[in-house]
Formats: sequence, C-alpha cells, structure tokens
Amino acid sequence: MDFKEQVKLAFQQAQQKICKALEEVDGKSNFSIEEWAHLEGGGGITRVIQQGNVFEKGGVNFSAVQGKIPAFMKSQVNAEAAHFFATGISIVIHPESPMVPIIHMNVRYFQTDAGDAWFGGGIDLTPIYIDDEQARFFHNALKLTCDRFQSHYYPEFKQWADEYFFNEHRNETRGIGGIFYDYIKPDESISQDQLLQFAIALTDTFVDVYVPLVQENRTKPFTPHHKEWQLIRRGRYVEFNLVYDRGTKFGLETKGRIESILMSLPEFASWKYQHQAEVESDEEYTLSKLKKGIDWLN
Amino acid sequence: MDFKEQVKLAFQQAQQKICKALEEVDGKSNFSIEEWAHLEGGGGITRVIQQGNVFEKGGVNFSAVQGKIPAFMKSQVNAEAAHFFATGISIVIHPESPMVPIIHMNVRYFQTDAGDAWFGGGIDLTPIYIDDEQARFFHNALKLTCDRFQSHYYPEFKQWADEYFFNEHRNETRGIGGIFYDYIKPDESISQDQLLQFAIALTDTFVDVYVPLVQENRTKPFTPHHKEWQLIRRGRYVEFNLVYDRGTKFGLETKGRIESILMSLPEFASWKYQHQAEVESDEEYTLSKLKKGIDWLN
Repeated sequence: MDFKEQVKLAFQQAQQKICKALEEVDGKSNFSIEEWAHLEGGGGITRVIQQGNVFEKGGVNFSAVQGKIPAFMKSQVNAEAAHFFATGISIVIHPESPMVPIIHMNVRYFQTDAGDAWFGGGIDLTPIYIDDEQARFFHNALKLTCDRFQSHYYPEFKQWADEYFFNEHRNETRGIGGIFYDYIKPDESISQDQLLQFAIALTDTFVDVYVPLVQENRTKPFTPHHKEWQLIRRGRYVEFNLVYDRGTKFGLETKGRIESILMSLPEFASWKYQHQAEVESDEEYTLSKLKKGIDWLN
Repeated sequence: MDFKEQVKLAFQQAQQKICKALEEVDGKSNFSIEEWAHLEGGGGITRVIQQGNVFEKGGVNFSAVQGKIPAFMKSQVNAEAAHFFATGISIVIHPESPMVPIIHMNVRYFQTDAGDAWFGGGIDLTPIYIDDEQARFFHNALKLTCDRFQSHYYPEFKQWADEYFFNEHRNETRGIGGIFYDYIKPDESISQDQLLQFAIALTDTFVDVYVPLVQENRTKPFTPHHKEWQLIRRGRYVEFNLVYDRGTKFGLETKGRIESILMSLPEFASWKYQHQAEVESDEEYTLSKLKKGIDWLN
C-alpha cells in the first residue's frame, strides 16, 4: 500500500473512532453518514450529528480528493505540478449549551504529481466563557502530545494558531487557540511515518481533551443572557470561517461538496449592532482573553 | 463647492430622507446616529434601526473617507494614483417578518488624485418567499428610473446584478436581483451631474418601492415554519456578504469601521445541514426562481 493510501486509511479509521466517542458522550443522537464523490476524483464521508443531548450541530468530515492544482496554490508547489491529492479529517462541534466550548480539529495530507508532499493540521478551542483552568488543561494536553514528537512543535504551533485563528477585522482571536501547522515535511529529525503518527496522535488527543470538557460543563445551568452571548460568539465563528479559513477557501475554490464544507457553521448565530459586554462581567473577562500571545500553561 | 463635496452633501441628504421614510413606515423604532472618523481621513454617519414593528435590524450608512489606494485596487486606477476619496450610502434592511423582503441599496462615488472618477451602485431585493407580481413591480420601478437616464441601463445593469448578487458556491442568486453598476464615467451621452442625479433618483426609487412592499406584506400571518426558512435564507445572505460582497471587502481591507461594515448582517441567521425544501412547497418555488437571467417584467 503506498503512503497516500496508508494516510487515507488511517484518517478514515480516526473518523470512526471520533464519531463513536462523541456519540457516547452525547448519549442521544448519532452521526448521519453521507458518502459523496468529488467532481474531479475521489470523494469523502461526511458525518453530522444534530439535535443531540449535548451537540446542537457537529460535523466530522473525511475526504480524499484529487484534481487540478487550483490557481491560488500554484505558487506553493513545484512548477511542474499539475494534479494534487489531498486527504483530511475536519471537525467542528457546536454544543447547545453556552457552557460547553466549540471545538475544531483538522489533520490533512497533501501531495502533488511533482513530488510535493506535506502535512498540516490543528486543534483549537472556542469557549463561550473562558475558564482558565480548562484552558490550561487543554493546552497542556496539546503540549504533551507535541512533545512526544518534537520539543519545538508546541511553542511554534501554538504561536501559529494565535496568528491563524484570528479575526483580523475584530482584532480578536477566535477562542483560546491551540495548535496550527502546515507545510510540514519529513527531514532528518522526523520521518513521513512519524508525521502521520503525529496526526493520528492529535485525533486521540482531540477525544482525550474534549470528552472531559463536555462532561465537566454539560450540566452547568445557563440563562437566555448566556445563550445570547453564545449566538454572538458563534457569529464571530461564522465570520472567521467565511472570511479567513483556508479549508473553507480551498473547498469553495476547488468546487468541493458545499454541505460538507459549510457543516462548520452553527445552526444559529447572531449579530447585534455595537454589542457591548457589561463592565466586570464574565463576557468582558472572556473578551479580555481573546488576545494573541497568552501563555495558557501558567 | 467642488464636485466631490456636492456628491457628499447629496448622499448625506438622501440618508436623512431614507431614514425618515423607514421610521414612518415602521411606526415604532427610530434610527440611532453614530458619527465616526476614518483612520486615514474623513468618516461617516451610521444609522441603525433595531427591534421595530417591522424592522428587526436595518442600517443606513453614509460615509465619505479618504486614504491610500489599497493594494487590491492598484490595477483599477491610474498608475500615478496614490490616494482615493470615496463616498457612498449603503443600506441593508432585515425585517422581522418572513413575509417582508430583505432589501439592499448602495450608491457610491470614487475618485483618485490621478483623475480617476466613477460612480457605482445597485439595488436588489431578497424576498424570503418570491411573489411574481411584487417582483414585477420592483423591477419595473427600477427600469422606469433607469430609462429616464439611459435606455441601455436597465438591461445592462439588471444582467450585472444577476452576475453580481450570486452565491457561486450555492449556484443560486441572493434574491430576485435588481440592478448593479460600477466604474460608470461621464461620456458624450451622460454628464457627471447626470450621473449624480441618477444615483439620487435611485435613492428615491428605493423609498418608492420598499415602502409599498412593506405595507403590502407586513400584516400577513406566518408560522415557525416560515420563520425557519427566513433564518436559512438569511444564512445565505451572510455567506454572500462575507465571501463575495465588494463593499464588505473594501471596508475590511481599508480598515473601515467594523460595526458599520457588518451592520448588513441579520440579528439571527441559521444553517441546517442538507436542508431540503418540500416538494411543491412555497420554499421550493422560491428556490426555483433563484436563477440568473429571469425576465421579471413579463
């Protein structure tokens, strides 16, 4: 089995594992399964959970597609490259309760017919209300996983996430960040197989951090005031995904399956003109922490 | 008074006229007034109506700003141009009732310090439920206004609107279109003053078409089913504005006032995975008409 088939199979297995874990913690809804074909070749399996006990709307998407290199990617690949192969898992989970954070994870592998090949990915957490202890737990878990592969990964990829998951026009981060990486190729310090293992380790870490975060927050009471704030924060999430997100852009520009690409959007979102958090409120505290460069581990 | 001051003043007066007309038809809420300054020079007046009898959220924005030509515009202006001046009115109105259409209008004037100068603008209507007779009324009014200036305007600008107000990734138009135009310069057939008069005539037409459309639809009963469809259609509106809209792009890239730029987004919107309209339903009929090239006049 060639390497790209190995990656594809490993990602497909990770998708199943993650859906099973999320179904168990939800306890009510199951993931739907839609298999689809890509216009130019390959396809994917989109799995969506809706109206669960915990999850209002969530998607765990697997895809393995091929096609002509889109114009906006020409500068990133070898001049002779004509076709790409890309496989990945992409997850966004929107819980119903404003006490349970939104989470996103993506791992992907990309190669061309001219020898380009790299991994990318990331995990980031978007709490509606930031809890410092939970933020530390989340970042610490990511650091431990990164450290098993390369000690420079966590500090570098954490900073990359701060830069990437950022709503420039709002001057605020999407949430408390996490890690983000792209164009990572094997070198003398890490092999292609190890990069695949790193991606799979992240899918395990996703389950290991998110299940406890759901359990810890799911029964916390909330009011319409908290719910209003959640819908506003989800509006910011929509802004990020439609204005900046590379995966969304790649999907739209390569004529991907639109329902799979935009499954990342929440069931409900809200925009209020000039919404202001009250002084010394929990909302104001959260806003004060939506900044780049925060060291969540200390 | 130089020409750009004339345009600015005329736009400012049109803003007042439109807000007054909309307040009268709403009968409950009034427009707030925020004056703001632009980072590089000039500023604007943003007027927003919220929680009215008819209008859940609507904005009528006036701006007159100047600054350095942004990188993405360099190819559209004379090579020697360094600074721009831009003034415009931009309106988006989101009624509470799904029976009352969303409307958008924009008129704008742009010039550089190297002799570039042009007008642009447009009006388009986004009914949640398309009514053929109301669509004909709307397009006919636009045609009559266009015909007073140039007989080729309506057919050209109607087609331009079909192309512009289009969610490429959904393969559907935003609504029933209207007119859109850009880079219109004076020539032997029309003077600069007449182009300004055309822009102002459109602001009159905006009032003349929208007030009757509100009156005709505001008391129609609706159910949660209609409301759900409205929120989904508003989701598509958000997609258009964040992915394609030039005004939004221009505003974000030139560091405009974010609350004024994004006042176009609805208070509530929704995304459902794989939403399907029922066979032979009103929703299916509306979807069947979200196509380019429909002749609404016949």
